[in-house]
Amino acid sequence: MKDHSFDFKKIDPVIHSRIRLAIMALLLEYEEVEFNFIKEQLKTTDGNLSVHLRKLEEVEYIKIDKRFIDRKPHTFCSLTQKGRDAFENYIKNLENFIKK
Amino acid sequence: MKDHSFDFKKIDPVIHSRIRLAIMALLLEYEEVEFNFIKEQLKTTDGNLSVHLRKLEEVEYIKIDKRFIDRKPHTFCSLTQKGRDAFENYIKNLENFIKK
Repeated sequence: MKDHSFDFKKIDPVIHSRIRLAIMALLLEYEEVEFNFIKEQLKTTDGNLSVHLRKLEEVEYIKIDKRFIDRKPHTFCSLTQKGRDAFENYIKNLENFIKK
Repeated sequence: MKDHSFDFKKIDPVIHSRIRLAIMALLLEYEEVEFNFIKEQLKTTDGNLSVHLRKLEEVEYIKIDKRFIDRKPHTFCSLTQKGRDAFENYIKNLENFIKK
């Protein structure tokens, strides 16, 4: 019998959402990025992006910082260590499906 | 600027659902499998599995055959060529995210 590597419940649903997966991958590549940059890269809306960033922040996969630059507020996002670990784990579990 | 490889809309949502991804991967490995075998492997219910198999059948990614064995009806599932191509494409797009 099998080793249950087809157990899809191991795949982290917080990361698996297509848009959140894109956010996580973007943050992994760029370390710290501005809200508007993510929005452009992902071709999405303010409202939609905010919802998904909040969801990632709630589980502490990302950190959201608001800072002023030239007196204008800017929102910066970055991965936490917990987020990095979760992403690594996510990829490992996903590869179990794909590598077959 | 970027090559828009963070465009998550390229990821096929029909395959990306965790359970359907598991079904597709299982079919890729075993060629033709019985409904009950999928159900066991994925630890899911008849109703839930049926819904997702139907969705994959609707887009012609899988073929569902009902055959009688020892006078009992059995349901067999297999990937179509279209399903194989879609899965390959899905993995390629996903790797664009992950390989960074």
